[in-house]
Amino acid sequence: MKSYIFIVILFLTTSCFAQSADSVVLARFFSTALTKDKAYSDLNDICKQCGSRLSGSEGAAKAVTLVHKILSSLDLDSVWQQDVMVPHWVRGEKEQASINTQPVAICALGGSIGTPKEGITAHVIEVKGLGQLAKMNPADIGGKIVFYNEPFDQAYRETFNAYGRSVQQRWAGAMEAARYGAVGVVVRSMAQHIDDWPHTGVMGYNDSIVKIPAVAISTKAAEQLSESLAKNKDIRFYFKTSCQTLPDAKSYNVIGELKGSEHPEEVIMIGGHLDSWDLSESAQDDGAGVVQSIEVLRLFKTLGVKPKRTIRVVAFMNEENGGKGGAKYAEWAKANGEKHIAAIESDAGGFTPRGFSMVATDTLRTQIKHRWKDLLDKFEIGSLDNVGAGSDVEHMEGICTLLAELHPDSQRYFDFHHTGRDTWENCNDRELEMGAAAMASFVYLIDKYGLGK
Amino acid sequence: MKSYIFIVILFLTTSCFAQSADSVVLARFFSTALTKDKAYSDLNDICKQCGSRLSGSEGAAKAVTLVHKILSSLDLDSVWQQDVMVPHWVRGEKEQASINTQPVAICALGGSIGTPKEGITAHVIEVKGLGQLAKMNPADIGGKIVFYNEPFDQAYRETFNAYGRSVQQRWAGAMEAARYGAVGVVVRSMAQHIDDWPHTGVMGYNDSIVKIPAVAISTKAAEQLSESLAKNKDIRFYFKTSCQTLPDAKSYNVIGELKGSEHPEEVIMIGGHLDSWDLSESAQDDGAGVVQSIEVLRLFKTLGVKPKRTIRVVAFMNEENGGKGGAKYAEWAKANGEKHIAAIESDAGGFTPRGFSMVATDTLRTQIKHRWKDLLDKFEIGSLDNVGAGSDVEHMEGICTLLAELHPDSQRYFDFHHTGRDTWENCNDRELEMGAAAMASFVYLIDKYGLGK
Repeated sequence: MKSYIFIVILFLTTSCFAQSADSVVLARFFSTALTKDKAYSDLNDICKQCGSRLSGSEGAAKAVTLVHKILSSLDLDSVWQQDVMVPHWVRGEKEQASINTQPVAICALGGSIGTPKEGITAHVIEVKGLGQLAKMNPADIGGKIVFYNEPFDQAYRETFNAYGRSVQQRWAGAMEAARYGAVGVVVRSMAQHIDDWPHTGVMGYNDSIVKIPAVAISTKAAEQLSESLAKNKDIRFYFKTSCQTLPDAKSYNVIGELKGSEHPEEVIMIGGHLDSWDLSESAQDDGAGVVQSIEVLRLFKTLGVKPKRTIRVVAFMNEENGGKGGAKYAEWAKANGEKHIAAIESDAGGFTPRGFSMVATDTLRTQIKHRWKDLLDKFEIGSLDNVGAGSDVEHMEGICTLLAELHPDSQRYFDFHHTGRDTWENCNDRELEMGAAAMASFVYLIDKYGLGK
Repeated sequence: MKSYIFIVILFLTTSCFAQSADSVVLARFFSTALTKDKAYSDLNDICKQCGSRLSGSEGAAKAVTLVHKILSSLDLDSVWQQDVMVPHWVRGEKEQASINTQPVAICALGGSIGTPKEGITAHVIEVKGLGQLAKMNPADIGGKIVFYNEPFDQAYRETFNAYGRSVQQRWAGAMEAARYGAVGVVVRSMAQHIDDWPHTGVMGYNDSIVKIPAVAISTKAAEQLSESLAKNKDIRFYFKTSCQTLPDAKSYNVIGELKGSEHPEEVIMIGGHLDSWDLSESAQDDGAGVVQSIEVLRLFKTLGVKPKRTIRVVAFMNEENGGKGGAKYAEWAKANGEKHIAAIESDAGGFTPRGFSMVATDTLRTQIKHRWKDLLDKFEIGSLDNVGAGSDVEHMEGICTLLAELHPDSQRYFDFHHTGRDTWENCNDRELEMGAAAMASFVYLIDKYGLGK
């Protein structure tokens, strides 16, 4: 019994000692990120030098060059670009819309065709999402504009859950309405609050169904349209867009890595996406994720933490409207036999970090929580129960042990997401930097201890 | 052995079942708070109907009446006011200041005397906090203005730690500088960022030392003053204030309670402070804490959760510049033999909740974590390691088992704290409401299971 107790005590002592040494490293990640301000200054460079970065745009090309340059300045073992062909959609002129003759704020949804030159003017039928459309009589819809007006469900603590529940009307709204003979769709912006900023985002077509133009309307204008319809169902809505899809363009993922000293063949991949929507400089979505990932490497270098495994940053192209960059990277990794033990994206905004969402076996999740939750909790980043990973790294399913995503506070994300408000000034420096430190902490633990047995 | 295992399994099953039932209640607190929006609408009423609420002011008197009215509307068992005499300091005319002749943003510190009518014009000596002052030669300070310019240390994750480290120069700056013959003090605002908003806050005098006027300067102007001094130490600073302290005034704590069904004699007290500084309507500090506390009672009523113990809301008067309300309540509770098992304040802003800081014995803290951390973690409010409680409830030390404070995310707090920017519009509805749900959750668990054995 005595020797058993001794072993337990020895184990606890060793374990506490290790945790305490790790705790010191994590604390240094946080204090260094918070005082050096490099991630925030990198974000300023991306936002102000490149502007918006829609796939195929000049801003996206500038961002490829800039991020290559930033990575090259870090004295890494390799920095390279990976070719990827991307969709090239352009918005054209500023959109116009009005309820009867009163102007309202809209924007075309990404991927939509434009309207005829004279725009579209038609009666409107309002539905609360696709479910309600499916119950309608096609005769009531033919020749009309379908107005999808399902708001975010405020009951969810996590705003991404509200988004997940409502976003289907944006993605599939045009193809579903076209089946019923609608001439266009107006979709309530995917937003938490009532304001006058329309939120763009990707929509889809089905090649077997006629394509009709789709726009997002600000939540304030959506409320106004709904009230107007309640008073008079015969009002007419007008909108005009000139967006179009050009031939695919060549672009790049940008990659940089620190080689591992003991297991260089094992890769821990971290990343964000370099492309963005075109209504703003897109600081939160996802300049933040790119600069946080870069900052992880910088923190390792600055603090002299030498990784055992290879830590690779990938700035993905085309997350927003095609996911070609993520697919290309995964395809290459698979073909090349690259051994990924973890792929962690930051694409939920540069807000105060809470933990990590994961796509992992129950065994692995339990093991990660058992080993590291107490330590991560000291830094208030121990929330490890959410399921999910960034959409770029989800392409790695099946060829990577752990897929994960930085899980920041989500309360303000949908005030900025895909709007003209997603600016550097609307990103808090400290929240952003703490997210970088959180990623560095998780990467450090995975690198030091590995995953699995 | 078998029966032992059986007991363990039975215990685990019962415990899981209880936790799952509790989890349902907590989830309802959150979804109800997030969808009903009552806390945010109460906050609007306090901010817009009463304005700023400095002790002794008309705004404070209006807030007493309004909160009494809100509590009375909730069909509680009792609502009452508790007399309290409070200091009555008034700011007077808008302050003026300039570096040489260039105007800069300042405000008088609370409790300061005013300057002579013509203001004070003098040379400036810059120090990084009280420690540096103590090393100075008095001959270098006599007749000058001492400029305390110790910035927040950005290395702290918790911004309250940076505040705690720097705030001593605000509190004791005038009395220490006066010992050396200074004629006035200018204190760098207690702020996270460089901006042009001066932050007021309480300062103190020592009756045995001459009183000199004290003002806060915006961080932007502090940087400017420091740069000017680096170029030319002979520049002169001018400031003029007309603040003064009037005789103590009568005011009130406002109290409302739901009687417990099983142990009405055991009180769980929750609260915030009703008074505020006078530069804004003071939404975060501490309208938020008052409306969140009220919302706890409302959530219990709305969801039909009948407490076993008495849940009492206290809206304290005079936290900002005297703490008379907190002291009075504790004195009354002691004299009355009121049995408090917990006193929980919200006075750290209406930001996304992370958990609760506590003043508790190690045994009690361990027990609380052991019992409830897993459950609170599901709602991302399981951070229970911080030490501290709100300054109003700290008066209850020794007569209450657990002192605690809602622990919200602190990153943005010192952008608003004690400035003209602390407005309702700068408080996020969902963050505020989740804080109320977090308080309701903690109160629910303490009420249902008690504290201790």
